[in-house]
Amino acid sequence: MKFIEDKILQDGHIIGNDILKVDSFLNHQIDYSFLQQFAAEVKRQFDGVPVNRIVTIEASGIAVACAMAEAYGGIPIVFGKKQKSKTVDPSNVYSASVNSFTHGNTATVTISKRYLNADDSVLIVDDFLAAGSASLGLYDLCKQAGANVVGVAIVIEKVFQGGRAKLKQLGLKVVAGASITAFSDNKPVF
Amino acid sequence: MKFIEDKILQDGHIIGNDILKVDSFLNHQIDYSFLQQFAAEVKRQFDGVPVNRIVTIEASGIAVACAMAEAYGGIPIVFGKKQKSKTVDPSNVYSASVNSFTHGNTATVTISKRYLNADDSVLIVDDFLAAGSASLGLYDLCKQAGANVVGVAIVIEKVFQGGRAKLKQLGLKVVAGASITAFSDNKPVF
Repeated sequence: MKFIEDKILQDGHIIGNDILKVDSFLNHQIDYSFLQQFAAEVKRQFDGVPVNRIVTIEASGIAVACAMAEAYGGIPIVFGKKQKSKTVDPSNVYSASVNSFTHGNTATVTISKRYLNADDSVLIVDDFLAAGSASLGLYDLCKQAGANVVGVAIVIEKVFQGGRAKLKQLGLKVVAGASITAFSDNKPVF
Repeated sequence: MKFIEDKILQDGHIIGNDILKVDSFLNHQIDYSFLQQFAAEVKRQFDGVPVNRIVTIEASGIAVACAMAEAYGGIPIVFGKKQKSKTVDPSNVYSASVNSFTHGNTATVTISKRYLNADDSVLIVDDFLAAGSASLGLYDLCKQAGANVVGVAIVIEKVFQGGRAKLKQLGLKVVAGASITAFSDNKPVF
């Protein structure tokens, strides 16, 4: 999507060889209008496909999920939790292991069994797709519930880190707002 | 707000003496339409007060912030981060210590100096107000930046845990969707 590529070229910063910093609009400061524009285009690309639930992972995925749920007329969101909480009964969750590229750690991500069901048609959304660990973990949680996953929508993907290839192997449709194939001369190549 | 009290009575569960579980619509599964309704009412109660930035804390505050930013016509959100990230330069942040009642831990919460400014008029939002640690920490970050805080908007507050009193002492206007004064017979009292 050209408006996302333009935004990255205008506001993004590359750190080292593999990190794109877009915290001015996506994962620290958030431009919600921008996410609404993204969500509308994703819905267009999934035209005719029934979706009744948005699944994401905390924290940066939540804003993307809000815009997407709104685009789909107010369907429920559920976000995978990385931390134990007093309000989550650990005996009643689906869980999967997820590596965070940005945080450099591994977390057990859980979703309550009450909020993923066998009759759900799920669209998985997130801010970034790199090696694909978060999306694969969320897919795993959906499969544990017997839910149907209609696809994955990502604001920015770094194709060279292999996430898209892994999701395609599972037969999943992947829609990305911007697909970065390489960093060259400190700039992203789309 | 009666629609929030009704939702809590319908879907909330009380755990022990002090925890209200509302993960069916607020902090695990999210009903974004509900948050839009809350945000519209908050904006009405702050009528005539200029707001140009929404400040919250990850993770559950982010969805509330999206609805609020949308109600205010697409103003920027910034959320306080609890975790170190490769994309955050630790020498360029405001930081404050925040206790999490639900997670039972203390975190250093940071916001980049680039996304809080002396000319900002900030509305702080969050899902819950209990002892007030998160809101006070966010207020502290805003003050470090020299920003003006116009008030605090909270979906559900537990008045008996003292958060509101602390915020009022700072002269802050506090708007809550539902104010719980006690739990009695395993039900919230508003």
